Amino acid sequence: MDDESEIRGLIEGWARAVHAGDLATVLDRHAADIVMFDVPPPQEGVRGIDAYRETWPPFFEWQRQGAVFDIESLDVTAGADVAFAHALLRCGTDAEFAQVPERRLRLTVGLRKDGDRWTVTHEHHSFALS
Amino acid sequence: MDDESEIRGLIEGWARAVHAGDLATVLDRHAADIVMFDVPPPQEGVRGIDAYRETWPPFFEWQRQGAVFDIESLDVTAGADVAFAHALLRCGTDAEFAQVPERRLRLTVGLRKDGDRWTVTHEHHSFALS
Repeated sequence: MDDESEIRGLIEGWARAVHAGDLATVLDRHAADIVMFDVPPPQEGVRGIDAYRETWPPFFEWQRQGAVFDIESLDVTAGADVAFAHALLRCGTDAEFAQVPERRLRLTVGLRKDGDRWTVTHEHHSFALS
Repeated sequence: MDDESEIRGLIEGWARAVHAGDLATVLDRHAADIVMFDVPPPQEGVRGIDAYRETWPPFFEWQRQGAVFDIESLDVTAGADVAFAHALLRCGTDAEFAQVPERRLRLTVGLRKDGDRWTVTHEHHSFALS
């Protein structure tokens, strides 16, 4: 499999795991030193895999209202040992989409190749401020 | 100069040009097909250099109130031909910092090497939602 396809599969699998509330798979390809800029604070980002892990249970709880978390578009730029990707996701409840149909989560992912394994070292999640 | 130093210089020069309102330098190292997830809408991102160019004059106008645009931290991951960086910036007016001292703009930049020239193909700008 080429690097672009592998990274695409990694991100698609991660998004399915987020939607399923499968924390082990959400964390599986993430580096110990990950830096995530999340939708809520902290302003300086979520730093390290322990802090990253802790962000997910409250998100899974929110998701149980019936929210979706679906990748709509995904663009991967893969080099030999560093890569990044940007994506748009439908992330919200029916009530939120009724109010703002065009609402999208914007996601950027940074990766490096550790040995023969692509690893996520950075994520940036945001909604546009309207 | 190694790739990491070159990319660091590129992003620092871009941020100085943003603060100076120097549009030509802001655009100089950006790809025709850039995709920017900006703080305001559109939700699907600003696509292409013409749309990217149009976002700056309103920002420069806002900045003339006396806002700062200063890189506080910058972390670069550079491969042979693809790179990404994440940064925190102090971006706001005195009044905004008086209200929320920890306010930071979160910035992620994606780059590829075109020939011997690093080029920005993606930017993601956001504030944490509080």
